[in-house]
Amino acid sequence: MLKRIVTISRQFGAGGHTLGKMIADQLGIPFYDSEIIEQAVADTGFSPEFVKEAGEYASTTHSFLFNLALSHSVSVGPGEMSNYDKIYIAQAKIIRELADKSSCVIVGRCADYILRERDDVFNLFVHANDAYRAERVLETYGEIPGKPIEERLEEKDKKRALYYRHYTDREWGDLENYDLTINTAKVPLEMACSWVVQVLKD
Amino acid sequence: MLKRIVTISRQFGAGGHTLGKMIADQLGIPFYDSEIIEQAVADTGFSPEFVKEAGEYASTTHSFLFNLALSHSVSVGPGEMSNYDKIYIAQAKIIRELADKSSCVIVGRCADYILRERDDVFNLFVHANDAYRAERVLETYGEIPGKPIEERLEEKDKKRALYYRHYTDREWGDLENYDLTINTAKVPLEMACSWVVQVLKD
Repeated sequence: MLKRIVTISRQFGAGGHTLGKMIADQLGIPFYDSEIIEQAVADTGFSPEFVKEAGEYASTTHSFLFNLALSHSVSVGPGEMSNYDKIYIAQAKIIRELADKSSCVIVGRCADYILRERDDVFNLFVHANDAYRAERVLETYGEIPGKPIEERLEEKDKKRALYYRHYTDREWGDLENYDLTINTAKVPLEMACSWVVQVLKD
Repeated sequence: MLKRIVTISRQFGAGGHTLGKMIADQLGIPFYDSEIIEQAVADTGFSPEFVKEAGEYASTTHSFLFNLALSHSVSVGPGEMSNYDKIYIAQAKIIRELADKSSCVIVGRCADYILRERDDVFNLFVHANDAYRAERVLETYGEIPGKPIEERLEEKDKKRALYYRHYTDREWGDLENYDLTINTAKVPLEMACSWVVQVLKD
């Protein structure tokens, strides 16, 4: 296999994290999920709790300055960016370094967008209907008293969509951004894993 | 294999028609494309040329009455619907009958929406970047003097999106409507075919 990067975006409960781990294990390549990336960002000097919170929070106040800074058309001093934006930039740097280093699987954190200029990236989006996701979430994380499961699914996906839109100016789940999107209620995870392994080895 | 229906929606030039034929051949099941469905509609008494034209034309004037008629909440006389809408209704009836009869592959014509209440349908969307599609279209259909290929791609997809939105009240290419979406510039058609055959046999 040539060096290849797999990014996985996923609706909450659709199995994207599990699928990513399966693909990485089968190919014998590193697997980076949000927790690992958050840890790497924290290692650069941010408080781990704040990094975690920032991961699914999209600041809105500084987005104009932030996008100018990212496009390099003007120089924005660190004092003018929110801490959320600084964390996003640190995270993007880490994701680029991980992709440079070796083949790997990266889940979440706008990795598809951050690595969009590479030609060795395969972008995956994983989704499923509410009933399927509800069952998986309750099995994996259990109930939260007083919070209906539908609300948890919606809240989490809304945050992901907002975060993605804020930092990429793209729509989360717009199929043109993905090489493969899979409804895991119809395609078993093992089968989806074998497909991605096959396309990477091709 | 249990009885299973595959619907394929596709960007112009992405290879959806070819892929559908490959899947049908490999499974030994009928393949219905727009031409076959148009012929079936024409057989019910419409002029074949008009049926062809209507296939990618979305009337807007009568959509309110049309949607009422489709939802069966009121009875709308044939005189109050446009001929385009009558053709859509005839076509939907034919697609439902084909799906009742046997396993099959149906390309285009809102089949995913028309068959949305069945649980034996696997919905596929096929897309690719402009460069890949331009090459395929020029290879298959040749150039049209004075009409840039980019314009042909855009025009055709715009018509399909408009037609789909008009008759389904959904967005064409919204990934939640599909069980699998494939970027054929990254996944060879033979591989995509084997995946769909595998999931249908599962």
